Amino acid sequence: MNDPQQAPWDGLVVGVSLATLDGGSGYGEVEDAALGWREGTIVHAGPRTALPADPNALSGAVIDAGGGWITPGLVDCHTHLVFAGDRAGEFEQRLQGMGYEEIARAGGGIASTVRAVRSAGEDALLEQSLPRARALTADGVTTLEIKSGYGLEFDGERRMLRVARRVGEELGVAVRTTYLAAHALPPEFAGRADAYIDAVVEWLPRLHAEGLVDAVDAFVERIGFTAAQARRVFEAARALGLPVKLHADQLSDGGGAALVAGFDGLSADHVEHTGEAGVQAMAAAGTVAVLLPGAFHVLRETRLPPVDAFRVHGVPMAVATDCNPGTSPLLSLRQAMQLACTHFRLTPEEALRGATVNAARALGLRDRGVLRPGMRADFVHWAIARPAELCYWLGGQLATSVHAGGRRIA
Amino acid sequence: MNDPQQAPWDGLVVGVSLATLDGGSGYGEVEDAALGWREGTIVHAGPRTALPADPNALSGAVIDAGGGWITPGLVDCHTHLVFAGDRAGEFEQRLQGMGYEEIARAGGGIASTVRAVRSAGEDALLEQSLPRARALTADGVTTLEIKSGYGLEFDGERRMLRVARRVGEELGVAVRTTYLAAHALPPEFAGRADAYIDAVVEWLPRLHAEGLVDAVDAFVERIGFTAAQARRVFEAARALGLPVKLHADQLSDGGGAALVAGFDGLSADHVEHTGEAGVQAMAAAGTVAVLLPGAFHVLRETRLPPVDAFRVHGVPMAVATDCNPGTSPLLSLRQAMQLACTHFRLTPEEALRGATVNAARALGLRDRGVLRPGMRADFVHWAIARPAELCYWLGGQLATSVHAGGRRIA
Ligand SMILES: [Zn+2]
Ligand SMILES: [Zn+2]
Repeated sequence: MNDPQQAPWDGLVVGVSLATLDGGSGYGEVEDAALGWREGTIVHAGPRTALPADPNALSGAVIDAGGGWITPGLVDCHTHLVFAGDRAGEFEQRLQGMGYEEIARAGGGIASTVRAVRSAGEDALLEQSLPRARALTADGVTTLEIKSGYGLEFDGERRMLRVARRVGEELGVAVRTTYLAAHALPPEFAGRADAYIDAVVEWLPRLHAEGLVDAVDAFVERIGFTAAQARRVFEAARALGLPVKLHADQLSDGGGAALVAGFDGLSADHVEHTGEAGVQAMAAAGTVAVLLPGAFHVLRETRLPPVDAFRVHGVPMAVATDCNPGTSPLLSLRQAMQLACTHFRLTPEEALRGATVNAARALGLRDRGVLRPGMRADFVHWAIARPAELCYWLGGQLATSVHAGGRRIA
Repeated sequence: MNDPQQAPWDGLVVGVSLATLDGGSGYGEVEDAALGWREGTIVHAGPRTALPADPNALSGAVIDAGGGWITPGLVDCHTHLVFAGDRAGEFEQRLQGMGYEEIARAGGGIASTVRAVRSAGEDALLEQSLPRARALTADGVTTLEIKSGYGLEFDGERRMLRVARRVGEELGVAVRTTYLAAHALPPEFAGRADAYIDAVVEWLPRLHAEGLVDAVDAFVERIGFTAAQARRVFEAARALGLPVKLHADQLSDGGGAALVAGFDGLSADHVEHTGEAGVQAMAAAGTVAVLLPGAFHVLRETRLPPVDAFRVHGVPMAVATDCNPGTSPLLSLRQAMQLACTHFRLTPEEALRGATVNAARALGLRDRGVLRPGMRADFVHWAIARPAELCYWLGGQLATSVHAGGRRIA
């Protein structure tokens, strides 16, 4: 008997349909498909009949999925999932009739998360954050953005970013870190926002030198920072060659979308109140619109983001969990996709592109988000009969396996 | 060395907090608690210090939960989870801009589910329904109501109810069956609704004689049946001593709540449009208001059920998934609780009572829904720091173990 020939892949899945998302529209459906990978990279993503040889005659591992669908690994391009404490108590107080201001006066709101993060050691912060990251990966996430922004002091911001890196190492999920010290004004800088921005700008190169920063973000809003302050942060980022993004136009049109587009920003996030000028600036700059339906849902907002304008102008739309303790306690990107369809009327295809290829683009990543030879072997097998089910069900466990870089992580 | 003394329990959990829900308000919180059970019944639910003896000196199994909370097992008191096919394709068509009528003309809507159920054998129907029931139990459900209503002919209704019983046997979850042949008019009775009700009334005692019917339901609405037709179904139920419930006042106030209350009904379900008279009739009859926020969410309804009137009049409120392929593809009762808080402004305590003790009452069950000696040992251990978290998070896997009748089912 001859030795079996060396297979050109480390792993191969057959007996499955693919939603490759390759090409500009449609799911890129392939029935009776095969997906093969080698050294962390996809080497085959197409019909089983197009395989170079009979897989059973080769030595590499072949898995018969017995049905279901494989999509690209999901990319959660906007989270604040490293935090301590939770705000379920505050959620309860609001439903018992307490107002936001009353809660803030009692020490609630973002200030309570800042206190909890400042007083948590790095290991405690990691221990509290890991279950949230695990929940996301169990539901299909293979790349995860995590922001700082609850430390609001050098050590706290540094600790958050270090924990974000450790989350990636612990779970085998790809983590992109974002420096968001310009998230809120810490109490010790009350009334001195410009002085705080001085500090934010001073901390950035030090954290970047430690390899902790992949991108820079800020929160421009009447209750946040001004466009001029965000501009100073963006200029500091540009000096380091770091890409920028912005929490823009969530509660009012503060010109945030145009501002970040002017810096060739990766994304403008929230964007419910972005007007026509902002949309056009984003289109010109190739800035992605990151839609965050979790906060919209929890805050019972009614102003929809300008989805039709994004479609007309060709602005790519992404969808993210915005996982955070105050306004978006989401532990599933699939549920964010459901909310994006229900609240924002995205089609399931738009929501899936928004949680894969467009989300990767919102992170500046061009090596993932579609199933195609040469891309990273990030993929999810789902127990579903058609891709739209990913946006249709609320709850449940649909992901049956999750691979990142060719390695099974869930 | 003496033999250890026989413990007065089969199992005992310590190192945990309890939300017993015992008493009329509050969570019934017990810190540093112990929960013991024997022969499927709770024998201790209170402080660890109140145990009759040092648990470690006894032979029975003692589990240290290492934190977290135990609540009563969740009760999903309104589901249509036995069905074939799904309607994710239709969900997608609607988001692509197709209207409900166009979809119905193309053979979609409930008619497509009826066709799929009629052509599915009993084993196929079971195989498709089990994963949905498993998703519910994995998220804490220990008692589950399942309705017929997609067969709309004797054999199809019978098959659905048989499958509902088999779901209970397969998963160890308690299943209560509801006969809902008066759900929609089947095509062969088009224009002859009264003749169909004749058939519905004739099938009922035959199915009841097979032990397949625990309660009887109907759908009263401009697009459903009339109050007079529902009354005939209820009279047939009363003749058999069967309790009744009703899909009432979902899209308009059709007097459904008052109708079912007039039959001392277990529950009026949906009830978004129920007026003051209906609420008062429910209060007088002790009829539970079953809130179904999944359909409200998916259909983007805006008319809220009269929650304040229910509170004022002391009408107990329950919350259920309404798990069905057309309007409420929910695979988690916890997510229904989240939606009930977000959309209907229930407090987390109301939502938890609505998914336990009040839901049990909506099924006529007085032996579960609270943690108290003598009640069924149905309980869930959750990895949470406070009960409100059950209504706060969207997604994630919070249940760490689920027991029904003292036996672990998830
Ligand atoms: Zn955010
Ligand atoms: Zn229903």
